[in-house]
Amino acid sequence: MSESSFPKGFMSYSDNIGIKENKFDFTVIHSTTPASAAAVFTKNTFCGCAVHIGREHIKDHSLDTIVVNSGIANVATGDEGYENAREIISLAAKELGTEEKEVLLSSTGVIGIQLPMDKMRAGLKELKNKMGDADFPLCAEAIMTTDKKPKIQSARIGSASLVGIAKGAGMIEPNLATMLVYFFTDARIGKEDLDRILRKAVEVSFNMISIDTDTSTSDTVAIIANGQAGDVDLDEFEKELTSMAINLAKKIVLEGEGTTKIIEVRVSECEDFQMAKKIGKSIINSPLVKTAMYGNDPNWGRIVMAIGKTGIETVDEKKIRISIGDDLVYDCGKKVEYNRERLVEYITKNTTGKIGVKMGLGSESATVWGNDLNEEYIRINAEYTT
Amino acid sequence: MSESSFPKGFMSYSDNIGIKENKFDFTVIHSTTPASAAAVFTKNTFCGCAVHIGREHIKDHSLDTIVVNSGIANVATGDEGYENAREIISLAAKELGTEEKEVLLSSTGVIGIQLPMDKMRAGLKELKNKMGDADFPLCAEAIMTTDKKPKIQSARIGSASLVGIAKGAGMIEPNLATMLVYFFTDARIGKEDLDRILRKAVEVSFNMISIDTDTSTSDTVAIIANGQAGDVDLDEFEKELTSMAINLAKKIVLEGEGTTKIIEVRVSECEDFQMAKKIGKSIINSPLVKTAMYGNDPNWGRIVMAIGKTGIETVDEKKIRISIGDDLVYDCGKKVEYNRERLVEYITKNTTGKIGVKMGLGSESATVWGNDLNEEYIRINAEYTT
Repeated sequence: MSESSFPKGFMSYSDNIGIKENKFDFTVIHSTTPASAAAVFTKNTFCGCAVHIGREHIKDHSLDTIVVNSGIANVATGDEGYENAREIISLAAKELGTEEKEVLLSSTGVIGIQLPMDKMRAGLKELKNKMGDADFPLCAEAIMTTDKKPKIQSARIGSASLVGIAKGAGMIEPNLATMLVYFFTDARIGKEDLDRILRKAVEVSFNMISIDTDTSTSDTVAIIANGQAGDVDLDEFEKELTSMAINLAKKIVLEGEGTTKIIEVRVSECEDFQMAKKIGKSIINSPLVKTAMYGNDPNWGRIVMAIGKTGIETVDEKKIRISIGDDLVYDCGKKVEYNRERLVEYITKNTTGKIGVKMGLGSESATVWGNDLNEEYIRINAEYTT
Repeated sequence: MSESSFPKGFMSYSDNIGIKENKFDFTVIHSTTPASAAAVFTKNTFCGCAVHIGREHIKDHSLDTIVVNSGIANVATGDEGYENAREIISLAAKELGTEEKEVLLSSTGVIGIQLPMDKMRAGLKELKNKMGDADFPLCAEAIMTTDKKPKIQSARIGSASLVGIAKGAGMIEPNLATMLVYFFTDARIGKEDLDRILRKAVEVSFNMISIDTDTSTSDTVAIIANGQAGDVDLDEFEKELTSMAINLAKKIVLEGEGTTKIIEVRVSECEDFQMAKKIGKSIINSPLVKTAMYGNDPNWGRIVMAIGKTGIETVDEKKIRISIGDDLVYDCGKKVEYNRERLVEYITKNTTGKIGVKMGLGSESATVWGNDLNEEYIRINAEYTT
């Protein structure tokens, strides 16, 4: 990844401010000029203070600063939690000479505990002086919690650059699965276009993954475009952003807790996209499919079960074809001769196990990504105590 | 359990007919006189041949015979599977001198494999001669697969008796979670009443449990009332049936794969029953709540997350109260002082861990039962190969 693929006009500061013992737990990324922005948040209705405020701040599709703390999620913390979040945003805005509504705060970690405000205040003090040219790889590291590796992707679109950093999925603290993803670009893109492009990219990437069906109270995906590199081809930008989003989404799954392999399910020949997505999600979220993949067992009976458990009335066993890798295992209820040993070898040897489901009901499709389920997930999430 | 609490006028035959190696794999229970009946089946739309036919046969609310095989589910077996199921029903009806539509067949076990028809035919041959007075405890044993113990309950209502037998939940074969429950009574109950009472009982019992969110292709709950003991007080009957259904449902959970404890969640103060059920199911199906319970951790942050992930818009963190055992742990966002050690001890020492959630939104409530998630579940479902 060459440095030239990072966008111009961003500054950053990353540090350990004492929320956690040793690791970085605080980062601020700031555009030196006003920027258009878009963001989508968790659908969890019991969501964090930062998410509530973030929804307000993104309304005008303009942001220039992102502040992230890890260690404490500031969820279920009552009025005090909201006051604390607002104070952090206010201090950051003041230090950087911007407006409060230009600042997006994200907090991840333990639920039900107040943020240590003295430490937060100290971290924000003289913020502008502490910032330097944006060090995106360091920011990607600073937003990590129990992630195995920093997740960062970048690309050039014409004269502009796009960078994406992500953390999470699976247990983070380990207390709650939280995914944070931020994109920064120096391309000039209008607010409506940016919002539309981000939402489309999220729908086919982060909305298509699942580690454990549990939805965080703090999930956030945001993009800031400061325009310093001028106009770009919007189609090309959308293509790059979407591809980057899918890659980051897959990294999140692959580095999810205890993951030994990705399950990629392509559901096609559906009546509509939502049907394909629902069936795909049902398969990757089935504990029985997940444990079978872990056990390297081409147990297509469990895939059949997961298709049917969606309750979709038009499901017709005489129209469905299922494949694992390149091999057909179920063909509309007719007898299929497949080589079981080859399937076992396929699942055993590949980090990504591909399952294909053709429903025979239409022409729409969706691809989803999940992980296997194993003892390591249990260990991480059972042995941890609050 | 005294023998006198079993209903009159039923015969049974249980045997190993060679589908499995050593264990009983076949049972037939037959009422000597015509009987009213009711049944509910899996909502999985990719369901077994036996379930499809069962739905036809229950339409006139009359059944006198139940035939159950285990070892092979007869699911995803195409036209041949249907022909086999119909032949088994036809042979049973002929042997017992009844009509085909009076016979309910259930098959559980491996998916995608045809039933061994020679063995099935041999099992059904001279069926009437092989039957004796119904041995319900033996029937309860005969429908077991990997269940740890037979599940049977019985009760007296006036001069009548009611017995219920159940198998399953968690992996059965282990290939697919299948639950079969049959009730038999000699009470005289009209078809409409029987159907209404069964549906109400199922809604608050079997519909309120979950082991792993995976819905079997073959789940069946049926009741046969042959009237040989005359009329009973319907309210009393409903009360007994409901209580028996809840007890059997809880047994299924407690004896589910790898279960070390039951999680009982009472969700109250909801706008309606469906809301309470949805929140309760979200909590017991959360892998994070399930692993926390296994780890004896009173991690109420995960309960908060599971409430919010339902996406119910009216969820208001300032109205919610959450308790574990008798101790309040979350109170409308206000600071709660609770004794963490006492909570850990409560979860550690009790087979049933009770969670109370008061939503502050209305007056409806629901109680659901789930289990913990641990390495044993993974082991059973990953190490097994098709």
